[in-house]
Amino acid sequence: MQRLLATDPNFASQFRKVVNDRRESDADVAMQVTDILREVRNRGDAALSEFSMRFDGHALTRDDDWIISAERCREAYENLEPALRDALELAAARIRAYHKDQIPADRDYVDGDGVRQGAIWRPVDAAGLYVPGGRAAYPSSLLMNAIPAKVAGVERLVVTTPTLKGESNPLVLAAAHIAGVDEMWRVGGAQAVAALAYGTQRISKVDVITGPGNAWVAEAKRQLYGVVGIDMVAGPSEILVIADKDNDPDWIAADLLSQAEHDPSAQSILITDDKSFAAQVEDCIDLQLATLATGKTASASWQEHGVVIVVDKLDDAAALANELAAEHVELAVANPEPLLKSIRHAGSIFMGRVTPEAIGDYVAGPNHVLPTGRRARFASGLSVLDFMKRTSFISLGEDALEKIGPAAVALAHAEGLPAHAKSVELRLK
Amino acid sequence: MQRLLATDPNFASQFRKVVNDRRESDADVAMQVTDILREVRNRGDAALSEFSMRFDGHALTRDDDWIISAERCREAYENLEPALRDALELAAARIRAYHKDQIPADRDYVDGDGVRQGAIWRPVDAAGLYVPGGRAAYPSSLLMNAIPAKVAGVERLVVTTPTLKGESNPLVLAAAHIAGVDEMWRVGGAQAVAALAYGTQRISKVDVITGPGNAWVAEAKRQLYGVVGIDMVAGPSEILVIADKDNDPDWIAADLLSQAEHDPSAQSILITDDKSFAAQVEDCIDLQLATLATGKTASASWQEHGVVIVVDKLDDAAALANELAAEHVELAVANPEPLLKSIRHAGSIFMGRVTPEAIGDYVAGPNHVLPTGRRARFASGLSVLDFMKRTSFISLGEDALEKIGPAAVALAHAEGLPAHAKSVELRLK
Repeated sequence: MQRLLATDPNFASQFRKVVNDRRESDADVAMQVTDILREVRNRGDAALSEFSMRFDGHALTRDDDWIISAERCREAYENLEPALRDALELAAARIRAYHKDQIPADRDYVDGDGVRQGAIWRPVDAAGLYVPGGRAAYPSSLLMNAIPAKVAGVERLVVTTPTLKGESNPLVLAAAHIAGVDEMWRVGGAQAVAALAYGTQRISKVDVITGPGNAWVAEAKRQLYGVVGIDMVAGPSEILVIADKDNDPDWIAADLLSQAEHDPSAQSILITDDKSFAAQVEDCIDLQLATLATGKTASASWQEHGVVIVVDKLDDAAALANELAAEHVELAVANPEPLLKSIRHAGSIFMGRVTPEAIGDYVAGPNHVLPTGRRARFASGLSVLDFMKRTSFISLGEDALEKIGPAAVALAHAEGLPAHAKSVELRLK
Repeated sequence: MQRLLATDPNFASQFRKVVNDRRESDADVAMQVTDILREVRNRGDAALSEFSMRFDGHALTRDDDWIISAERCREAYENLEPALRDALELAAARIRAYHKDQIPADRDYVDGDGVRQGAIWRPVDAAGLYVPGGRAAYPSSLLMNAIPAKVAGVERLVVTTPTLKGESNPLVLAAAHIAGVDEMWRVGGAQAVAALAYGTQRISKVDVITGPGNAWVAEAKRQLYGVVGIDMVAGPSEILVIADKDNDPDWIAADLLSQAEHDPSAQSILITDDKSFAAQVEDCIDLQLATLATGKTASASWQEHGVVIVVDKLDDAAALANELAAEHVELAVANPEPLLKSIRHAGSIFMGRVTPEAIGDYVAGPNHVLPTGRRARFASGLSVLDFMKRTSFISLGEDALEKIGPAAVALAHAEGLPAHAKSVELRLK
């Protein structure tokens, strides 16, 4: 963990190093992934079988080995303990409500020159959702990816998930039931992404692929960008907590550790205007780490990537936050409104003392799939827009063509495109 | 050129081949581009100088060699012949009006559980626009990329363009003046894209890069996807014209050639329900090609990739159009409304007999940067959204936390993330 003081003469260069800290592994998987994609494209299911045995120890033989039926998902849902089932249902309902409101309106109007034009938004026909196996198989992540697709109107929503040694997570199956997943295939890794993009004998191809995954999955999505639509490349999680001294340091410590426990590469940053409050938070972190079940991971992340920055006044935090462009930003202050206005780059912002980031991970409603690694400078969280596309349209009558057609003719000639010019000229009186 | 009859027993497989026709070159430029990106990242301006001399024959020595000043753009604008200047201004005004209407609304509301949440849309800080050199330096393309960025509110809009042997196109400079471009650098190729993404001593980095380019530029954007935001990978242009026999075949021929003249890899497809009309259009194409200044390119495209499909009735065209998911679709029929509704996948649709596609290339208003190569299945044309990003926010009071917090605690424990659970539990009464 690093301590930075804004009054330190070296602060600017120290902070620059924090901003440029690359926590993403440059694992050299590109060539392996290229090979896997080619094999699945050429040999389909046969290649899937080979890779599933090799990487997941899972034999794809009978139909049951390939697919998890809707019945099994429903059973998993019905067998959940009621409190968990209610929690998943609450989360799903709130996520659904928030995302319904994102559906963009079509446009269709006639302008002053008599040109009718507009745009129509439509869902993609089919979407694929990658769900990691093992520890990272999170039901919340399934809800956050699947519900926006269904709200967008996607008719065919396909999940692929590795079932390591045949095992699958009942909470994930229950979430698939709640979200209305249409197909669930027991394949994982780059080979699953290839199957979704190219199609195989059993698995029909999709138009968009989203969802988290390891370095192979991420690289496969990157290589298939353009063959299908994909969500933003995701790196390790991060949180920036901006807190004044009137917070309970134990609360802030828990918030910082909630990010750190995800991954040794996760990053937790505290900005405060009070040096002794910063020290109290550090002490609380050490105490909590001592008993935390995920302490090993959280401790590694905090030691390696944790940062505590003491600034002169909290207003100075906005400029630092804009440099960091963090995935999650907590504003643990009495009046977070001015900071909300001045922080331009952030995935999601959590306002006030009783809005811990974990609320947004599960039940608030806005998506928890958010831009990481400073990508909030240009990228947004997952939304229904990732599962929709827009078709523009133009309709001219003869009068409108007489008005704006001659300008098109002039520009087409100037660009050396005479057939463009002719297609308009022929229609002018 | 291929002729297909929907009544032919082999039609399905012939049509499948048209749909799967890959017109994009798999030029093996990936490794060269990786090298260029690394050099620019490590050595900045020195690498730019070397590559500019090697690839464009342009020496980057004095300041004037590096940058085209705003004054030079203004002069180019003032020296344009008035008809062209007016045409550019008309195009710019109409593009501006259409894109202004795309700016998404922010959201901020309190829901039934007392949770305040919403989303704020903001422009990126800086955008880079690649403008090709030589023949493909189109002023219309500059307007179509630059105006949405400026309408979105981007404060710093940077153009890079190769000035082969030092030459630049006065129409492009005039368009840059109209669009309000802030910086214009005389570098091109993959090295220009690298400079925009990583920054060099002279060129500050940007957040989003858009604009057309050759295979090296496209590959550089693909490799830098995630370091910056980019627009969709673009391939050769295509048009699908759906026309009944009541059209003037000469008009339809010009429309098909307006796409073919772009590039030998462009594709023009006619679907009609009248065999003799199809033959008339083919004859008109041959006649027009004989005198067309771009005849060599247009002829190569039409011979290699042109397709004429005769269907039983025009209603059948919608299903074919959805398979093709073409960049441009013309509906040259008396009542295009039903086809507009049933065509789900298209970049842009041009309705009626007097709306040639070229109107959309220049002056209509909707963007002419559109998804190619069947990507309209999942991608949209360029818009202000490509230059903006969304930050979600959540604000809970104590009552709201009591309502939805326990569900978050239950899910966090179930996912094996105790610090997540604790950050909420500590705040519950």
